[in-house]
Amino acid sequence: MDLNKYIRDVQNFPKQGVLFKDITPLLLSPEATEEALSQLCQQAEGLGVNKVAAVESRGFFFGSLIANKLGVGYVPVRKKGKLPYTTISMEYALEYGTDTIEIHADAIQKGDKVLIHDDVLATGGTAEAVVKLVEKAGGEVVLVSFLMKLNFLHGEDKLKGKNVKSLLEY
Amino acid sequence: MDLNKYIRDVQNFPKQGVLFKDITPLLLSPEATEEALSQLCQQAEGLGVNKVAAVESRGFFFGSLIANKLGVGYVPVRKKGKLPYTTISMEYALEYGTDTIEIHADAIQKGDKVLIHDDVLATGGTAEAVVKLVEKAGGEVVLVSFLMKLNFLHGEDKLKGKNVKSLLEY
Repeated sequence: MDLNKYIRDVQNFPKQGVLFKDITPLLLSPEATEEALSQLCQQAEGLGVNKVAAVESRGFFFGSLIANKLGVGYVPVRKKGKLPYTTISMEYALEYGTDTIEIHADAIQKGDKVLIHDDVLATGGTAEAVVKLVEKAGGEVVLVSFLMKLNFLHGEDKLKGKNVKSLLEY
Repeated sequence: MDLNKYIRDVQNFPKQGVLFKDITPLLLSPEATEEALSQLCQQAEGLGVNKVAAVESRGFFFGSLIANKLGVGYVPVRKKGKLPYTTISMEYALEYGTDTIEIHADAIQKGDKVLIHDDVLATGGTAEAVVKLVEKAGGEVVLVSFLMKLNFLHGEDKLKGKNVKSLLEY
């Protein structure tokens, strides 16, 4: 199955000049979703993953699916102020200004082997922050998993030394 | 299994005086997640569901799991401006002001039997808007599914005539 056929190009979103890769046609197809999920879980084989951390909001689409299929705990990574309980946080730079992501303080234990998932690897700023956040909590990042990566943005430069995998590349 | 044990009470979130029901301990337990998912899917038995629409962001935790387990298409319902392609939208009243939710225009076809899922039924304002949005798109709402409902907020009054189910009640 060619998963590329389920990714829709949308011109000028979220702003003029950007070509957005829309994964909602993939979500609308149960067969394509199952195939993508199967491939995402294959990438985790033999790594001893015991937690999946997924990034708000589009990372949530496959995050809980991966955790459920691997039979491990699920950790939502959210924007500042969205998680109700005690959190640990990580600030990171945007094009203009900064943003902050958080996880619950009890979500990751020392020695946990963590699979980080998001839908797209673009500039890598968010992914780098999630890696640092998981490591701050005592977890070991054994895989950084994406549905797709946009190679022309060189996001992997920010994830040097990490095990980075993606189903699709552009 | 008593799923209640996996719901954490957090005082004064998101604002003073509110007791927040935190589902992240449930997400952290693969066994509790599987049990909740199994119960959520049992509620859909015999209804002919062919699409699951889940509400940003906490509805996404179980939304894709339910769609995957039922083997049907998944439709994310998002806040205004988050979906890249042509959308249809529904405005609804908040305590102060209004909010707007959207789905992609091609997500739901006339005659689709739709399961709507969110984590919590509170005042019912969002759920009512999602029902109207799905029906505007031509879908039939066969089940409105929640992990929990807060009975003292009487959200079901806004969903009269609909098939509303919840795993937990407070």
